[in-house]
Amino acid sequence: MIRFNNDYSCGAHPQILKALEDTNTESYGGYGLDIWCEKAAAEIKKYLDCPQAEVHFLIGGTQANFTVISAALRPYQSVICADSGHIHVHETGAVEHCGHKIQALPNTDGKITAAQIAEEAELYRTSGVKEHITQPKLVYLSFPTEYGTIYSKQELEEIGTVCRNYGLFLFIDGARLGYGLGSVKADVTIADIARISDVFYCGGTKCGALFGEAVVFTNPELCVDFRSYIKQNGAMLAKGWLLGLQFYTLFKDGLYFEITKRADEYAMQIKQAFAEKSIPSYIESFTNQQFVVLENSMLKKLDDKYVYEYEQKIDETHSCVRFCTSWSTKEEEVQELIRDIRQL
Amino acid sequence: MIRFNNDYSCGAHPQILKALEDTNTESYGGYGLDIWCEKAAAEIKKYLDCPQAEVHFLIGGTQANFTVISAALRPYQSVICADSGHIHVHETGAVEHCGHKIQALPNTDGKITAAQIAEEAELYRTSGVKEHITQPKLVYLSFPTEYGTIYSKQELEEIGTVCRNYGLFLFIDGARLGYGLGSVKADVTIADIARISDVFYCGGTKCGALFGEAVVFTNPELCVDFRSYIKQNGAMLAKGWLLGLQFYTLFKDGLYFEITKRADEYAMQIKQAFAEKSIPSYIESFTNQQFVVLENSMLKKLDDKYVYEYEQKIDETHSCVRFCTSWSTKEEEVQELIRDIRQL
Amino acid sequence: MIRFNNDYSCGAHPQILKALEDTNTESYGGYGLDIWCEKAAAEIKKYLDCPQAEVHFLIGGTQANFTVISAALRPYQSVICADSGHIHVHETGAVEHCGHKIQALPNTDGKITAAQIAEEAELYRTSGVKEHITQPKLVYLSFPTEYGTIYSKQELEEIGTVCRNYGLFLFIDGARLGYGLGSVKADVTIADIARISDVFYCGGTKCGALFGEAVVFTNPELCVDFRSYIKQNGAMLAKGWLLGLQFYTLFKDGLYFEITKRADEYAMQIKQAFAEKSIPSYIESFTNQQFVVLENSMLKKLDDKYVYEYEQKIDETHSCVRFCTSWSTKEEEVQELIRDIRQL
Amino acid sequence: MIRFNNDYSCGAHPQILKALEDTNTESYGGYGLDIWCEKAAAEIKKYLDCPQAEVHFLIGGTQANFTVISAALRPYQSVICADSGHIHVHETGAVEHCGHKIQALPNTDGKITAAQIAEEAELYRTSGVKEHITQPKLVYLSFPTEYGTIYSKQELEEIGTVCRNYGLFLFIDGARLGYGLGSVKADVTIADIARISDVFYCGGTKCGALFGEAVVFTNPELCVDFRSYIKQNGAMLAKGWLLGLQFYTLFKDGLYFEITKRADEYAMQIKQAFAEKSIPSYIESFTNQQFVVLENSMLKKLDDKYVYEYEQKIDETHSCVRFCTSWSTKEEEVQELIRDIRQL
Repeated sequence: MIRFNNDYSCGAHPQILKALEDTNTESYGGYGLDIWCEKAAAEIKKYLDCPQAEVHFLIGGTQANFTVISAALRPYQSVICADSGHIHVHETGAVEHCGHKIQALPNTDGKITAAQIAEEAELYRTSGVKEHITQPKLVYLSFPTEYGTIYSKQELEEIGTVCRNYGLFLFIDGARLGYGLGSVKADVTIADIARISDVFYCGGTKCGALFGEAVVFTNPELCVDFRSYIKQNGAMLAKGWLLGLQFYTLFKDGLYFEITKRADEYAMQIKQAFAEKSIPSYIESFTNQQFVVLENSMLKKLDDKYVYEYEQKIDETHSCVRFCTSWSTKEEEVQELIRDIRQL
Repeated sequence: MIRFNNDYSCGAHPQILKALEDTNTESYGGYGLDIWCEKAAAEIKKYLDCPQAEVHFLIGGTQANFTVISAALRPYQSVICADSGHIHVHETGAVEHCGHKIQALPNTDGKITAAQIAEEAELYRTSGVKEHITQPKLVYLSFPTEYGTIYSKQELEEIGTVCRNYGLFLFIDGARLGYGLGSVKADVTIADIARISDVFYCGGTKCGALFGEAVVFTNPELCVDFRSYIKQNGAMLAKGWLLGLQFYTLFKDGLYFEITKRADEYAMQIKQAFAEKSIPSYIESFTNQQFVVLENSMLKKLDDKYVYEYEQKIDETHSCVRFCTSWSTKEEEVQELIRDIRQL
Repeated sequence: MIRFNNDYSCGAHPQILKALEDTNTESYGGYGLDIWCEKAAAEIKKYLDCPQAEVHFLIGGTQANFTVISAALRPYQSVICADSGHIHVHETGAVEHCGHKIQALPNTDGKITAAQIAEEAELYRTSGVKEHITQPKLVYLSFPTEYGTIYSKQELEEIGTVCRNYGLFLFIDGARLGYGLGSVKADVTIADIARISDVFYCGGTKCGALFGEAVVFTNPELCVDFRSYIKQNGAMLAKGWLLGLQFYTLFKDGLYFEITKRADEYAMQIKQAFAEKSIPSYIESFTNQQFVVLENSMLKKLDDKYVYEYEQKIDETHSCVRFCTSWSTKEEEVQELIRDIRQL
Repeated sequence: MIRFNNDYSCGAHPQILKALEDTNTESYGGYGLDIWCEKAAAEIKKYLDCPQAEVHFLIGGTQANFTVISAALRPYQSVICADSGHIHVHETGAVEHCGHKIQALPNTDGKITAAQIAEEAELYRTSGVKEHITQPKLVYLSFPTEYGTIYSKQELEEIGTVCRNYGLFLFIDGARLGYGLGSVKADVTIADIARISDVFYCGGTKCGALFGEAVVFTNPELCVDFRSYIKQNGAMLAKGWLLGLQFYTLFKDGLYFEITKRADEYAMQIKQAFAEKSIPSYIESFTNQQFVVLENSMLKKLDDKYVYEYEQKIDETHSCVRFCTSWSTKEEEVQELIRDIRQL
């Protein structure tokens, strides 16, 4: 079977495994206080224009999301996000478990707008009963979104402006950051992401690492004693250098950007193949996740050879499914899929 | 000024103040373990057909809501309610502060339907990724709703059936229970409420008491060690007999039902006065809260003499406002308002 | 039966009940935004030398404790208190329920010292593994303590100095503040309490009110958006003026200080009666709570006429019990008890 | 430098790295639903006599501790543990952050007794004010303890009996389980641990894995929907097979027991070398952690060649330090240390 079902079903990029082997008998300080974490942070910061940035390495996305939010908010403050946001729909209420309300706004293709955020913030600002409602204090975006779509530079700038105007923190979930930045449609760099947001993370789990998310704080106010939050939330890996080592490997020569960009290119080829057969996209994505609407009879033909993710029934004869490329996808797998699409 | 702005702006029914005076120099056991709480519980239970019911007296509505929910749910379980529900929009995220997600469903006139609840529960039941989402486990309704509307017996029965089928607890917020039961349109009794729900409360704060909410558990599973939850959540009044005494006074001869029913009747007279002037209701309510859409010029005429609650701008020349009667509203106040409405 | 078992078993001072009656048919703004809360705050502030002080009225002590602590601390910060502190032993883990660890220090007669606090703070300051332990950030004291003892001015000043040096907030639980200030041994005033602490409260529940605690913030940093915390924690009384009215009555002519001081004087007379019979104190208290060690045979003689609180067995023939006077204790009750003590 | 400072400063056992390489290009289901987790659970269960046991793989110890406790307790319930327990002193208040109080009992060599637990449970059972205190509901032990000491079979049986009698869950933290079971003094097997406790874990992080803890529930009541707790607490690894694969490798041929037992043997040789020089133990440990009291002048001699953990100053000329062996310690390292000890 050839797998296009998700971007976290294989181990790690060979260079990462090799780095693990090379250092396996070495001894390092525990809990993220080691030379590899230091070096990894330095490599990541080379891509930013933000000398004061502080980098912390956590293990997974859900963990990174609620740990950052727990550190950023006071008990009566809430999070604004899209109603399709990962923290709202796929994290078992982890943010609420930390005590915070999520104010979910209707998404358009997985995104929310500066205007929507401003409206929500203005509602609070002008409320006569502030103490009866939660105070929106942090905006959570994903880049790319759950649907593979990305914010344009202008959209992000506008959101950043609204956040500054209303005193909101901007937190960008970059679980798939590489795939977002590598998109042909992307007009932002990681330095833009860093400049516009207060905190964001570079996902490792889905972008070549065994696991790990590099959380980058550009707003120093947000990361006071952040290591205490990491520990309290069970997100401090005893052998923290395993995280540093992986991110060092991914960032030192731009491997992170290279392997995700290639996955995006494969996805574009698949997208085009579907388009040529007039098979419609469910959502127009220019990153590694492609949501398409196929006849069920077509799916049957693909079932023998390919694994994809079933999303939802569209009607009696059509379904929406996701084909997802990743850093581990091989060119021949893509070519084979394209051939088979052409023969549908 | 004549006040129709809300139902919690006056002290208590004179009988309650008298009871406080009569007992003021007496000594009682603390923390709700006293003869008045016992007697009050017995009086309330006379109206129910539920010998196993357990009654606890808390101080306020928000407190009652999150204390019950905190006792009912495990950390990964969530609450289903209308998106207009008080816990969702006016309690500063208290339920989330206790760690629980609220799954807010679109309301129709402040209500949700059995079908909506079933759909949400079915989504969880059939989900292939249950561990990534919260488990809906409790349905929160208000009777009457924030908009003064009430559920019919059939609607409640249907909701009760869905709850039983899916193993959901049904919790009915009765902050204004008296006004709901006293409505000309109500076809349920307090015994029906008790039979259909797992837990509900009879609001005292808005129905003649200085403060206090009588929480009635009909499902014994839900109230194990509930006094521990009361104390932990700061809801245990040291001089608990003050609550018992008030509820005893309200329930012993049906005063609770009588004074709220009269307020409903006054509201119906006001409703009719508006109708006769072709001033439209914003929502059709048959309880003590009347939401009407008035010309701003009309409001100006009323402003000198009446206090009402401004709700929202409808258009350049119209506004939605609330006129609210209560147990303390006097007949002459209502007659005066009606006269003035007629002259608008 | 004559009751000396506690100071919260009677209603309210007659002036308070009268004030409730006098205003019962008046209408006021809800949720603590009313003229009586304003006036009460002004009266309390007359006793302080702290123009920037902010006063909020909550309903009970447990509630006041965890609401203040919830507002003061970030998730990884902890509370230092005596191991006999009310929040540690009698509030059903309410502080932990809000997410905060309590670092309980061994008490001496219910008190802890500046040196103990400094040691704990220094341990954190010099720790090489700060992120693995909680950061002590708030010191919780009771004045008087659970055992009726009081801190001297010098002790409080020393504690205040340590708190400032280490950046700790000082929070003084004054559930029985009046009895502490009214003690013959007290060398502090309420203005001293306000000056030395960051936040404290004047207990009403045990000092003449039906219920209510007046929380006074002298450190503005601590009370940002405190009304949001009040609401979120279910501590906002809908008819908030009931609190304001009671505290206005207690403070406007010094009634609060007068009635608690008298209770202390009665307690001193009882203390002396025991001493004259060579009945030992369990702890030397100079406030309204007297802990004495009596022969069980003596207790039997008192049992017919008096209610006291049993504390613990001392040996086969002796027990420690508490005799507690209050604002409602009558002179003749005290005289009768003294006569009976003399005849033991 | 030769490192004896801790047991988590090296990568993983070579067999584990090899397994990671061998499977690196394979695809597996995400979130712990994969063949390796299944196989690992089966291997672990071969050592138990408990067919109903349920095994879950988490990433780290702090995470495992609070996730299990969060799943086991209701909000008003508390944890009993030694005052030296890891959850009490080194996890940044993670258990309290989840809302639960810890009732810390004085330890003797890192351990608590059945009698101490019974006393605490009895205090609650016989309390007349249960609702004012937390209900102890779970006992947390470490095997071995923070000090390297271990409970005997009889001690564990007695604790197990007390737990059953009082309805307490018994949770054994086995972060170093292998080193405990491998001790010459151990008279319990992993099957005993499973039989006596309700839930325990086999630590991987310190026993040969890169990371990972295998949580074993033997009491089915405790693990209802446990995967929801794992996800909510950020403890669900996307590539869960990395955990399964490691534990499969460790348990399939007893590697886990073999490598930790050898580390214990090395520790015994070091212990003897110290004893022969009349260098006293700080605590008598028969596992991989040796706490000894050395003259500072001796430490200076060792400093050039060895890394150990400094624990505390004993007096002006003596210090307590820890020498810790691990699965990665080599025989020649041990021999060299012994030679150098002999020459002190």
